Amino acid sequence: MRDNRLRGLWQEGKAAINAWLTIPSAWTAEVMAHAGFDAMTIDLQHGLMDYQTALSMLQAVASSTVVPLARVPWNEPGMIMRLLDAGAVGIICPMVNSRTEAEAFVRACRYPPLGYRSYGPIRAAVNSGEDYFSAANQTILTFAMIETAQALDNLDDIAATPGLDGLYVGTIDLSISLGLSDKVNLNSSPMEEALDKIVHAAHKHDLVAGIHVYSPENAVMLAKRGFRMLTPANDTVLLRGAAGSVLEQTRRVLGFA
Amino acid sequence: MRDNRLRGLWQEGKAAINAWLTIPSAWTAEVMAHAGFDAMTIDLQHGLMDYQTALSMLQAVASSTVVPLARVPWNEPGMIMRLLDAGAVGIICPMVNSRTEAEAFVRACRYPPLGYRSYGPIRAAVNSGEDYFSAANQTILTFAMIETAQALDNLDDIAATPGLDGLYVGTIDLSISLGLSDKVNLNSSPMEEALDKIVHAAHKHDLVAGIHVYSPENAVMLAKRGFRMLTPANDTVLLRGAAGSVLEQTRRVLGFA
Amino acid sequence: MRDNRLRGLWQEGKAAINAWLTIPSAWTAEVMAHAGFDAMTIDLQHGLMDYQTALSMLQAVASSTVVPLARVPWNEPGMIMRLLDAGAVGIICPMVNSRTEAEAFVRACRYPPLGYRSYGPIRAAVNSGEDYFSAANQTILTFAMIETAQALDNLDDIAATPGLDGLYVGTIDLSISLGLSDKVNLNSSPMEEALDKIVHAAHKHDLVAGIHVYSPENAVMLAKRGFRMLTPANDTVLLRGAAGSVLEQTRRVLGFA
Amino acid sequence: MRDNRLRGLWQEGKAAINAWLTIPSAWTAEVMAHAGFDAMTIDLQHGLMDYQTALSMLQAVASSTVVPLARVPWNEPGMIMRLLDAGAVGIICPMVNSRTEAEAFVRACRYPPLGYRSYGPIRAAVNSGEDYFSAANQTILTFAMIETAQALDNLDDIAATPGLDGLYVGTIDLSISLGLSDKVNLNSSPMEEALDKIVHAAHKHDLVAGIHVYSPENAVMLAKRGFRMLTPANDTVLLRGAAGSVLEQTRRVLGFA
Amino acid sequence: MRDNRLRGLWQEGKAAINAWLTIPSAWTAEVMAHAGFDAMTIDLQHGLMDYQTALSMLQAVASSTVVPLARVPWNEPGMIMRLLDAGAVGIICPMVNSRTEAEAFVRACRYPPLGYRSYGPIRAAVNSGEDYFSAANQTILTFAMIETAQALDNLDDIAATPGLDGLYVGTIDLSISLGLSDKVNLNSSPMEEALDKIVHAAHKHDLVAGIHVYSPENAVMLAKRGFRMLTPANDTVLLRGAAGSVLEQTRRVLGFA
Amino acid sequence: MRDNRLRGLWQEGKAAINAWLTIPSAWTAEVMAHAGFDAMTIDLQHGLMDYQTALSMLQAVASSTVVPLARVPWNEPGMIMRLLDAGAVGIICPMVNSRTEAEAFVRACRYPPLGYRSYGPIRAAVNSGEDYFSAANQTILTFAMIETAQALDNLDDIAATPGLDGLYVGTIDLSISLGLSDKVNLNSSPMEEALDKIVHAAHKHDLVAGIHVYSPENAVMLAKRGFRMLTPANDTVLLRGAAGSVLEQTRRVLGFA
Repeated sequence: MRDNRLRGLWQEGKAAINAWLTIPSAWTAEVMAHAGFDAMTIDLQHGLMDYQTALSMLQAVASSTVVPLARVPWNEPGMIMRLLDAGAVGIICPMVNSRTEAEAFVRACRYPPLGYRSYGPIRAAVNSGEDYFSAANQTILTFAMIETAQALDNLDDIAATPGLDGLYVGTIDLSISLGLSDKVNLNSSPMEEALDKIVHAAHKHDLVAGIHVYSPENAVMLAKRGFRMLTPANDTVLLRGAAGSVLEQTRRVLGFA
Repeated sequence: MRDNRLRGLWQEGKAAINAWLTIPSAWTAEVMAHAGFDAMTIDLQHGLMDYQTALSMLQAVASSTVVPLARVPWNEPGMIMRLLDAGAVGIICPMVNSRTEAEAFVRACRYPPLGYRSYGPIRAAVNSGEDYFSAANQTILTFAMIETAQALDNLDDIAATPGLDGLYVGTIDLSISLGLSDKVNLNSSPMEEALDKIVHAAHKHDLVAGIHVYSPENAVMLAKRGFRMLTPANDTVLLRGAAGSVLEQTRRVLGFA
Repeated sequence: MRDNRLRGLWQEGKAAINAWLTIPSAWTAEVMAHAGFDAMTIDLQHGLMDYQTALSMLQAVASSTVVPLARVPWNEPGMIMRLLDAGAVGIICPMVNSRTEAEAFVRACRYPPLGYRSYGPIRAAVNSGEDYFSAANQTILTFAMIETAQALDNLDDIAATPGLDGLYVGTIDLSISLGLSDKVNLNSSPMEEALDKIVHAAHKHDLVAGIHVYSPENAVMLAKRGFRMLTPANDTVLLRGAAGSVLEQTRRVLGFA
Repeated sequence: MRDNRLRGLWQEGKAAINAWLTIPSAWTAEVMAHAGFDAMTIDLQHGLMDYQTALSMLQAVASSTVVPLARVPWNEPGMIMRLLDAGAVGIICPMVNSRTEAEAFVRACRYPPLGYRSYGPIRAAVNSGEDYFSAANQTILTFAMIETAQALDNLDDIAATPGLDGLYVGTIDLSISLGLSDKVNLNSSPMEEALDKIVHAAHKHDLVAGIHVYSPENAVMLAKRGFRMLTPANDTVLLRGAAGSVLEQTRRVLGFA
Repeated sequence: MRDNRLRGLWQEGKAAINAWLTIPSAWTAEVMAHAGFDAMTIDLQHGLMDYQTALSMLQAVASSTVVPLARVPWNEPGMIMRLLDAGAVGIICPMVNSRTEAEAFVRACRYPPLGYRSYGPIRAAVNSGEDYFSAANQTILTFAMIETAQALDNLDDIAATPGLDGLYVGTIDLSISLGLSDKVNLNSSPMEEALDKIVHAAHKHDLVAGIHVYSPENAVMLAKRGFRMLTPANDTVLLRGAAGSVLEQTRRVLGFA
Repeated sequence: MRDNRLRGLWQEGKAAINAWLTIPSAWTAEVMAHAGFDAMTIDLQHGLMDYQTALSMLQAVASSTVVPLARVPWNEPGMIMRLLDAGAVGIICPMVNSRTEAEAFVRACRYPPLGYRSYGPIRAAVNSGEDYFSAANQTILTFAMIETAQALDNLDDIAATPGLDGLYVGTIDLSISLGLSDKVNLNSSPMEEALDKIVHAAHKHDLVAGIHVYSPENAVMLAKRGFRMLTPANDTVLLRGAAGSVLEQTRRVLGFA
């Protein structure tokens, strides 16, 4: 089984730069993969692809060096295992609010005796020769999303879950859950407090902390706080932004706007 | 049948701003449609979608005000007619090099007696009530691509084709055909000469001239020359550019690059 | 966010006429949408489409005025939230048999503090500008299906669930659950009793009662009883019926049958 | 290779009742197939499916007794042969206007020495054991569409094409080509004359004449004239009609319309 | 409703030979179906298809005599019921570890009063006329997978579940769960013991025992032990093996290897 | 642009071993690619995939070292160019019967001044950096199929076509065209004569000769005759053969057959 390059980056103390895929298309996935990100996350929760499309995306990015992860729609073992079998080398699980939920999630990603993942890595094993079973438990990444007040309350318990690799902040949901706006202000004090608490728990339990990044300033600030999985790019957002910008610019230079 | 808004823009002396779609996805089409372009062209020649995907894209953009066009893979009546039946309100035909080819193309887009389009506008007529047949010949747009030395030689004949609405420059193919580079320099004198010749023929025969635009400076220069169908946006190019840019910027601010 | 036209109809005391979609096709969805129904329900339980196809159907109907709803396969938050993000403006949930189940369902459709829906309305927000988050909780419709003896037993508790908008009768399942035939007789006294009980609970808790309608007589009878969400059309049933009928008629007039 | 049931019907002097498929869906194809039609035609010209979808439709109808035909987008050998390889047992070719075109079409459907069909009946041979090659030329049906004034002029030549099995009238295109309305009036004298001429040519050359049928009266009239391939059903038209009718009826009985 | 041929085979004391489908393709399903297996199992757990593709596979095999089953991704009623509605005539459920889980599974496959399956056999009833509801509970097969140490502990309880038809051994997962290798040795004594225990429980409760078969020797050994549902064929494994073998052989005879 | 490994093999005097893909599936393509063949040909003529599926197959095999080719449905420039833009690095064109046809084919694969390929290598250029245009004409392979008596008559003319790289024998079509059986006997003297003539013409014009191989003996015989592009594997044939064989074997050892 190929080494997970993200673990290597983190061992070197670096942050991994992650792209977020919401467009249900193997072509846009291939384009994003060849852009040079360290990781990419196929988002089956708020993105628009289901399993069959995600499979075609995993196939399309295999020619690049990107590490493909998937966010699952919900904490449900069937889909978690299917995406791992299809070749995702890590899972980001939304709405992990308690230790019980964290264990259910992590154990779905691990073969016995560490978990209850069922054996059948049909595509995942294509390149791994004989060793997929023995290598998978150490290679696959597990990120629990921290995005509710309840999760913050149970943070230490969640972070202590055996086999968990990271905490990923769901900034908008967390902001909403804390009674703040859906227009997230990372610099508000409740958010800053929450971010620090999450990074602290991550470090205490030797986990990676991850988060979305909305600007270069964000990236610097969050990296300084200790986040090592940074997601500055969402395909739909990039496309919409670039299209709007070129249109506005063209209209302006032509004197139409 | 809905009026073709592009004809309206041109009658007002305005240029239409067109987006070029190469991603085989109804979702990216919907995103681009809601960005506010006047027109969009689903590219079945160098884009990555076939008819079935193009159909889903035509459906997805119908909730916006964009005028959907399609570029066909080749000058072939079967595909031209199918895309019109599916709801494209104009066709851009590549590699039109002679009057014979121009007539074959245009007549495939027109019902008798102006052409030989076969009747069956299954989706195109969904919103048009009883009048699709009577309105289609005046509403559907036909653009012949001028992209070879041979086409330049036959330009006046092509431009005089009855029922033709526009000439669309294929800049890279034209540059290659003229023995110049595939990295187009619109400001080289053979290209400038070709562009002027095309605009001149278009104006002489009351056609619209269209072209790709690679920068704001381009847009201004080409609009000044008389092009009124300008394409400053290609979805794959926009996405790749935006992804590369945010990645490079993030790496830079983090001190990785 | 667009107003939900169904709420408007109900405020005017009218019944909404709903189409039921079981064919996994964006084209048949578009045809049904333009037929003029007030609402349409994409049925992911007994219909033949999954999420990816449902997405293409939601895109295809956006050019009409129909209000698109979805019936989910089961009371499962992942799929409920994905369909809302994809643009469904209401969810019909099958087999809601208890208050606990009703709350799990309704809260999956509502953002905090009313529920636990996760934020990410990628397609749903395309047309809504800045206000999707603030408007969604009041706009999205939630219908719990009442289709077992157990649900009848818990009816008042279910109907009292905060945030629930309607009760939708699953007539065949209810008939079977009551030990009656799978060939439903709405005029049998156990069914009439059940229907009245459901309408009564709906009215008591200010909910809309909905149901399938198998004939014009049905429609009148059920509207009189107080049902305000009526579904007289199922696409597969309509197509099968129309095909059988034209075939039989043709054979008959030709003297073959 | 299975016998072609349509040839049997015609040998008994009966008309075959044909359904026309325009919805790109294997499910609606399966529904139509089980309705009991003698034949069905997957329409790749004005219908909304391409080859890949047509393949899934051919697979879905194989469990019924229906004889699956396909109308190709245009008189092009690549697509004709692909549909035959996929299991279509007959081809209806649009816009056959001359003997040359008729021969190009028919010979694309026949193995040498009768034609130039290339060998490779990958799916077509699934059920045929060893004899597909020897049986195909006698089993596959070839229908040339007569739908222009030019075709009428060349009718006898076209009908005399070796290997041609039938003439299929394209009523709307023929009406338009004759300078009549797109709202076809089969009882107008130019149309009656054309229909008689076509049936006459068919009978003279031992061909089957086929046509769309818009009402029971039509069916009787056309059968009397000698048409033995009658198409009274189009899936999109049936669905739209049935949906509109049930909606109108429901609104009416409820007092809304 | 068609009789379930597998029940017939078992009543005659024969074993059923089953093919395992992991390739997400209606074409490979059709090829496998016409190879002559008694049953085939569309594997939605470790196979690469989701529901929509599985539907197309079920359609494609309906022209053969094979009995189509499906393995679900997880013990989840929504997917179980959808696959039955789509025409699967039996479900294999993974990871059934307790009586509670076994009942939840079996009851999802049975209409009341035996279970809680919801009514709506849209495709399943295509061929069954009026009797689907009355025949389904006796026709549909339910196999619980026994593949953990915990399941072995609860074996008698699981096997006694009313309505359960069979036990299917998940050999690799069972081997892993017992602390043995992922390279299964069926002849090791812990595995032999487990197999005997499973067959014994099956016989005691009048169930069929099923299992994967990796060689002809395996088949004989397992049939002797009493297994009557034998799966010697997995499509991906067959294709990969045959491709590797022909390539190696060709290279060898050409002197390249 | 990556070097074309096949050219390297041929320069070393080796034969390339090619797999033939007829299953419309990115997964089976990925499996075949990782089996280790030198080349694979996606067959859009007698195989069951169209362009959109072929694109997904090209994406899925990019992670292997296989050289992906495509056979087009017919000698038609639109499809030839689209497959090259999608990443095929060579085209096999069926039914090339004359020098005119050979030139039309080859020139569709070459940029000016060698041909008339239109520029737009959207996916093909993903990995090639700046040099796709300058490298493509020397890298892309062009194979003309020789499969009719007419092609044999014009063989020297065809083989002399500038830019042509190879001749590929269509054995079954050639056998049929020569009036022989569809069950090809490569050892019959008319076939041997034809094969020698083709190899001779190939060598004279410095082309590679290619052919299907049905057995190891075939491979040796054909390699000795000078064929250097050998296709011993067809995915559907391999799967069907392996399935039939394991089923027959299982039935036999169990005493059922």
